[in-house]
Amino acid sequence: MNIMTPDWVKDAVFYQIFPDRFAKGQQSYSSLVFNVPYEPWDAPPTLQGYKGGDLWGVIEQLDYLQDLGINAIYFTPIFQSASNHRYHTHDYYQVDPILGGNIALEKLLDAAHQRGMKVVLDGVFNHASRGFFFFNDILENGPHSPWLDWFKVEGWPLSAYDGSHPANYVGWVGNRALPEFNHDNPDVREYIMQIGEYWLKQGIDGWRLDVPFEIETPGFWQEFRQRVKAVNPEAYIVGEVWGDSRQWLDGSQFDGVMNYLFTGPTIAFCAGDRVLYDLVKAPDYYPYPPLDAQGYGEKIQSLLKLYPWEIQLTQLNLLSSHDTARLLSVAGEDKDSLKLATFLLLTFPGAPSIYYGDEVGLPGRLDPDSRRGFPAPEQWDRDLLDYHKQLIALRHRYPALRRGDYRMIWAQGLCYGFARCLGDSQLLVLVNAGTQSARATFESAGGLGQIIWGYPELNQEEVGQDTRFEVTLGARQGCVLLQQG
Amino acid sequence: MNIMTPDWVKDAVFYQIFPDRFAKGQQSYSSLVFNVPYEPWDAPPTLQGYKGGDLWGVIEQLDYLQDLGINAIYFTPIFQSASNHRYHTHDYYQVDPILGGNIALEKLLDAAHQRGMKVVLDGVFNHASRGFFFFNDILENGPHSPWLDWFKVEGWPLSAYDGSHPANYVGWVGNRALPEFNHDNPDVREYIMQIGEYWLKQGIDGWRLDVPFEIETPGFWQEFRQRVKAVNPEAYIVGEVWGDSRQWLDGSQFDGVMNYLFTGPTIAFCAGDRVLYDLVKAPDYYPYPPLDAQGYGEKIQSLLKLYPWEIQLTQLNLLSSHDTARLLSVAGEDKDSLKLATFLLLTFPGAPSIYYGDEVGLPGRLDPDSRRGFPAPEQWDRDLLDYHKQLIALRHRYPALRRGDYRMIWAQGLCYGFARCLGDSQLLVLVNAGTQSARATFESAGGLGQIIWGYPELNQEEVGQDTRFEVTLGARQGCVLLQQG
Repeated sequence: MNIMTPDWVKDAVFYQIFPDRFAKGQQSYSSLVFNVPYEPWDAPPTLQGYKGGDLWGVIEQLDYLQDLGINAIYFTPIFQSASNHRYHTHDYYQVDPILGGNIALEKLLDAAHQRGMKVVLDGVFNHASRGFFFFNDILENGPHSPWLDWFKVEGWPLSAYDGSHPANYVGWVGNRALPEFNHDNPDVREYIMQIGEYWLKQGIDGWRLDVPFEIETPGFWQEFRQRVKAVNPEAYIVGEVWGDSRQWLDGSQFDGVMNYLFTGPTIAFCAGDRVLYDLVKAPDYYPYPPLDAQGYGEKIQSLLKLYPWEIQLTQLNLLSSHDTARLLSVAGEDKDSLKLATFLLLTFPGAPSIYYGDEVGLPGRLDPDSRRGFPAPEQWDRDLLDYHKQLIALRHRYPALRRGDYRMIWAQGLCYGFARCLGDSQLLVLVNAGTQSARATFESAGGLGQIIWGYPELNQEEVGQDTRFEVTLGARQGCVLLQQG
Repeated sequence: MNIMTPDWVKDAVFYQIFPDRFAKGQQSYSSLVFNVPYEPWDAPPTLQGYKGGDLWGVIEQLDYLQDLGINAIYFTPIFQSASNHRYHTHDYYQVDPILGGNIALEKLLDAAHQRGMKVVLDGVFNHASRGFFFFNDILENGPHSPWLDWFKVEGWPLSAYDGSHPANYVGWVGNRALPEFNHDNPDVREYIMQIGEYWLKQGIDGWRLDVPFEIETPGFWQEFRQRVKAVNPEAYIVGEVWGDSRQWLDGSQFDGVMNYLFTGPTIAFCAGDRVLYDLVKAPDYYPYPPLDAQGYGEKIQSLLKLYPWEIQLTQLNLLSSHDTARLLSVAGEDKDSLKLATFLLLTFPGAPSIYYGDEVGLPGRLDPDSRRGFPAPEQWDRDLLDYHKQLIALRHRYPALRRGDYRMIWAQGLCYGFARCLGDSQLLVLVNAGTQSARATFESAGGLGQIIWGYPELNQEEVGQDTRFEVTLGARQGCVLLQQG
């Protein structure tokens, strides 16, 4: 199969926004939310409270994102939903009124596209919510409902809100708040396909698919891909699959997945035994136990062998998300762990995704703490922000970081290195995760190297067509050398 | 106050459609309702079942309606709702998917307007439903909901679906399925005003307002009128108020009400003791006890004195509705009672409204029986249908029937008569509700009369500027004479 993935994703640096918490528009655009009482922005988030972030606020922050180097936004759900995270979809065709409604998305798409920024939405198609029309009709009309076959009703009466009785319908992971669609019903399947098409036609640039592995109807995701790509062949489809995703990454379904197989080892290597196990044991990724360079290299090699290269270039790589604790907290607030992992993120094949606030040092334990309000500028870690900017700029400057082959060149102790090679140019990336300085010695085809990132001690010598490198890196440091063919 | 009401309503003959039961489109326009199982069209209706009538079906029946003489349609609710009558609004901005969605309404409006037909929708603004987004959020998030103040929460926990616990919120007439809006919240008020404006902008011609008397927020309906009329000064606003409606008919709020003060006496006069009391004792109108001509005349005189004349001409007059038993059943299936009452309906000031199916002799006791599927042509009472056509044509032919003054000219026994006078022309309308023939004798200013409806025995004689009439009407007959000034 000739695998085709969207070209723009290979050059993308994503920013993941949890819309209730990123930014609140300075202007009140809607006359409907004048008197809505929200939780204080700075207060610790609660599981059910709203802080009132909106898409108007995102529009106002596009300068900030562009300045950071971001050229793609991935939003957690924005459709009308009776939950602050909006995974409980109430209406797939309406942007939540608190977020500014459909008009705010329209304006955001215009503004983002004018800046060359892409926008990807979160599609929650496995389950809906208790208030979702077609399920609500079953609650209201019982066996008389014409939509009975849209869900998986197992008996009567339904008990949607009273946990002391059996729910009598299938909810996602047994959660009665999230009734699962019956995807085998052709009407349901068509309904979801049309949603997929509709928002593409409205101008979004792709779908991040929530728990797509739960939908086992044969051909479902293949049809989704065909219909979405028929609207826009360059649309990005990325699935939320935490582990081995070969089943969906054969080219007929997704362009990539949320690459937690990169996340876990990268944290385990960079943060080592600083990782707070309590923060990582629940989510389905593995930042623990610690990895040394050899162990990290093996994980990465095996990951890179798992999927076709065309897919690797459009994976969504990340260090934190709304579903994990933030890396800063995972690493016991050790900033260098975050810096090193971010360095590896920005030099890895596939599109990096930065979870809003990570770039300014926002901490956050597990949900709801990982979804705090974006801090005010006076609380930002400016050094960290600057670090992100520079690394993102580096990635944009060197196509080899985005599309170049990946080849491990060094793995000893806690020092790890790899080359990213594209055409005549080759970048040599080294990272020392140890608390002592470390030396790497290796040969690489091509001329003398030039330091383009970091402050290594570099000795090099041309040996025929190759160059022999001796690189000494300070504790917890990374560097990049540019070697021309 | 200078009272302005929409001119077109004075010339309108309405047809009231209960959309789930009037007509089902022959073509499947939506790919989403292919596999929806409906109740059989001909089976007795149930309180919760759907029969699947839609707006596509209405479009296909516009020829039928036009042929009948209808030039305005009043729909019971069409917005997305988890109830077959759709009074439990789930989304005020979406036409129900079973009805064909917003696209079907758009096409219907186009098709109706091309024929010069108006379309009035039912606005249910006192209460919403349990699945309505803003209420559902309260169900889902409890005290954390930002929309708490949109409804009238009285305590926790809410029990929306389990009748064994207190609902803890205000529902319309205590019905927990119908949470009442808090209209004192300016956001709620604005939300409803915007709905009112929105559908006018989409091209509807007016609003029938459900239980508007329940909304007591000062200035609410005045603002509604101002905002609706600002979009379309000729929009019709008609309230569902069953009794004395002076409070809303001062020109600052509604153009008319559903004129049950006409319905009750007219049935009581035409059907007399044929009325099945069990069918009329619950709804808030008074077709019982029977009235003689004198009694009927008094009721009508008092009704005509109640409101300004400009309002009288835009009242919505009716004999049955989805909220009553059908007149044919009320009258113990006595067809003449229906014919006589229809005769009075079509000759009365104000816009007549025919409840779908009444014109072909569809019977129906109280809800749900009054909401049967429209019968197949082979089941129609063709005589009754023809009778309706002719009376409607008569009303269209003579402006005096629509706009002429109303003056009682005869009331004796069960024989009642009135004149409708406009400019030089005057129509003399007589009806004999008795089972014996009856004679009316009276003088009327103007020349000799001409029989334009019915088969009375007419003797007349000019006396100066007047004519003396002696009209003998057969049992259960009506007639109309045309007298030129």
